[in-house]
Amino acid sequence: MSKKYNICVLGATGMVGREMIKVLEERDFPIDKFLPLASERTAGQKVTFKGKEYTVEKAKPESFEGMEIGLFSAGAKISAVLAPEAAKRGCVVIDNTSHFRMDPNVPLIVPEVNPQAIKRHKGIIANPNCSTAQMVLPLKPIYDAVGIERLVISTFQSTSGWGKEAIAEMYEQTKTLLADPKAKITPKYIFKQIAFNVVPQIDQFTDNGYTKEELKMVNETRKIFEDDSIQVTATCVRVPVAIGHSECVNVKTKKKIAIDEVRRLIAAMPTCKVVDDPAKGVYPTPIDSAGKNETFVGRIREDISQENGIEMWIVADNLRRGAALNAVLIAEKVIQN
Amino acid sequence: MSKKYNICVLGATGMVGREMIKVLEERDFPIDKFLPLASERTAGQKVTFKGKEYTVEKAKPESFEGMEIGLFSAGAKISAVLAPEAAKRGCVVIDNTSHFRMDPNVPLIVPEVNPQAIKRHKGIIANPNCSTAQMVLPLKPIYDAVGIERLVISTFQSTSGWGKEAIAEMYEQTKTLLADPKAKITPKYIFKQIAFNVVPQIDQFTDNGYTKEELKMVNETRKIFEDDSIQVTATCVRVPVAIGHSECVNVKTKKKIAIDEVRRLIAAMPTCKVVDDPAKGVYPTPIDSAGKNETFVGRIREDISQENGIEMWIVADNLRRGAALNAVLIAEKVIQN
Repeated sequence: MSKKYNICVLGATGMVGREMIKVLEERDFPIDKFLPLASERTAGQKVTFKGKEYTVEKAKPESFEGMEIGLFSAGAKISAVLAPEAAKRGCVVIDNTSHFRMDPNVPLIVPEVNPQAIKRHKGIIANPNCSTAQMVLPLKPIYDAVGIERLVISTFQSTSGWGKEAIAEMYEQTKTLLADPKAKITPKYIFKQIAFNVVPQIDQFTDNGYTKEELKMVNETRKIFEDDSIQVTATCVRVPVAIGHSECVNVKTKKKIAIDEVRRLIAAMPTCKVVDDPAKGVYPTPIDSAGKNETFVGRIREDISQENGIEMWIVADNLRRGAALNAVLIAEKVIQN
Repeated sequence: MSKKYNICVLGATGMVGREMIKVLEERDFPIDKFLPLASERTAGQKVTFKGKEYTVEKAKPESFEGMEIGLFSAGAKISAVLAPEAAKRGCVVIDNTSHFRMDPNVPLIVPEVNPQAIKRHKGIIANPNCSTAQMVLPLKPIYDAVGIERLVISTFQSTSGWGKEAIAEMYEQTKTLLADPKAKITPKYIFKQIAFNVVPQIDQFTDNGYTKEELKMVNETRKIFEDDSIQVTATCVRVPVAIGHSECVNVKTKKKIAIDEVRRLIAAMPTCKVVDDPAKGVYPTPIDSAGKNETFVGRIREDISQENGIEMWIVADNLRRGAALNAVLIAEKVIQN
């Protein structure tokens, strides 16, 4: 009989946590003991795993005794404290927060892209930011084939990226404005009105005028490809979509590559799907991605403005591909090793 | 007493036509005779100008007898037929459709950017596509100061760009989905579901994988700057916003320019407004632009991915700045000349 593992999900009541539980079920991850954990705020809530109801326990250092894998998604501050505690107790942490991502001792993994880096872990493995994770997937075979010099990115990110409260806020504002188009909206979770609007700010601003979210795309892309020579600029924008991030990515490669070859390479990349037949109106939109494991790529075309340029449109379920699925795929690699 | 003009608005019942009438009123354009015209489909409807109700007449070649200025916004096919008829009768046509924009005999004008080109008109002057018009405004002083080598553009375009039916469709879909999140949506005016979604297609696709809308941004930008060496790539995306287009624009200049100087130059550009204080959460969003004449520019920062690079976020009311106001500003220049 193959080995089964004791696995805990920290942040089990959040959107990503719930998605992690769903993905563990779907993929029939070999689990012996399942332990849902959360911060004090939501401990006590119930979650269901494989038909059985569990009461979510408050996470504390001792929670990780006997645990072998921990999927963490309860916020950077909680990970900062509890991930080392878990690792110390022999529980390999796969952390979905930003806290450890740029730590040189922590591998930052998208399993289809840089599985080789997993082995370097010392108890903690980081999951990239959702917008980076989905982008590096179709870029990987292009990088391998012809190298990547520069990326110019604009994102269209869904409200679920800011948590379930942000989705609820979007729907609430939408209802209010449908009833009274002149209603005054006071934003709470998203920085500005998000209903019938777009907001060019995700996370906080840094001194150079970029947001932290934008710099995550710069730094995490380089770390995943282990190549600091890749030049990256990004503008991250929140749009009134519930689930599914979309990205407009302009790529400059080091060498010439035919666009049909780009399409072929992306189609051959595991978990990527080319959805690209403009003549028939075929391209991905975020609602098509919700609940799906694939990263959908369309609008693939030769950039008419530069040599060796490619334009593409990358769409994925940010909770799943960008977070929960990525974490579980890492866990699968960990138990393979 | 200063001269007054006979002016007609063709497409007077459409969103841009109604906005043109509003702008003519607001700016107290010197009008003697006012004549609202439309295609057969909407002729007979009423419009109000300066407190007086007018019945919209069906446009025919003879409608333009005695008219001096015609603001056209009834679609490319109607302009193709009627603009030459109007011009023949001495009525200077300011055409908001795409039909004449790339015609070498027709100047393409944003009055603050290339007023010098108006004088070359032979009876017809074209108004650029709304997304181009708002973009070239803040780019103009940068172009003059240091030259522009390349632009990488992503747009976030509102449904009003596709007409009032598209706005109505967005609200209708939104209501349906709020009542039943699993409701099946059948798109009618916009290519895919637009409520709680984004759609990376505006206008039809061309053979190179770009849409016509995207190529308008390429070609019109070059024509307005009278500089075919400017390299441009664009991805145009429809977002669930009623009024106001937003644009993420990555600029490569020919020479180095300090970012403070960029901000100063844009602030000094007529009708442009810098809204850019990230530390205080200050940047423009489309709802802020609706009903305003200004083009709002924020998120101005040095591009960390290339030499001589600038990132910016440009927002304007597409019906007004991108169409109606631009047309009336052209008319004002025409009567000045």
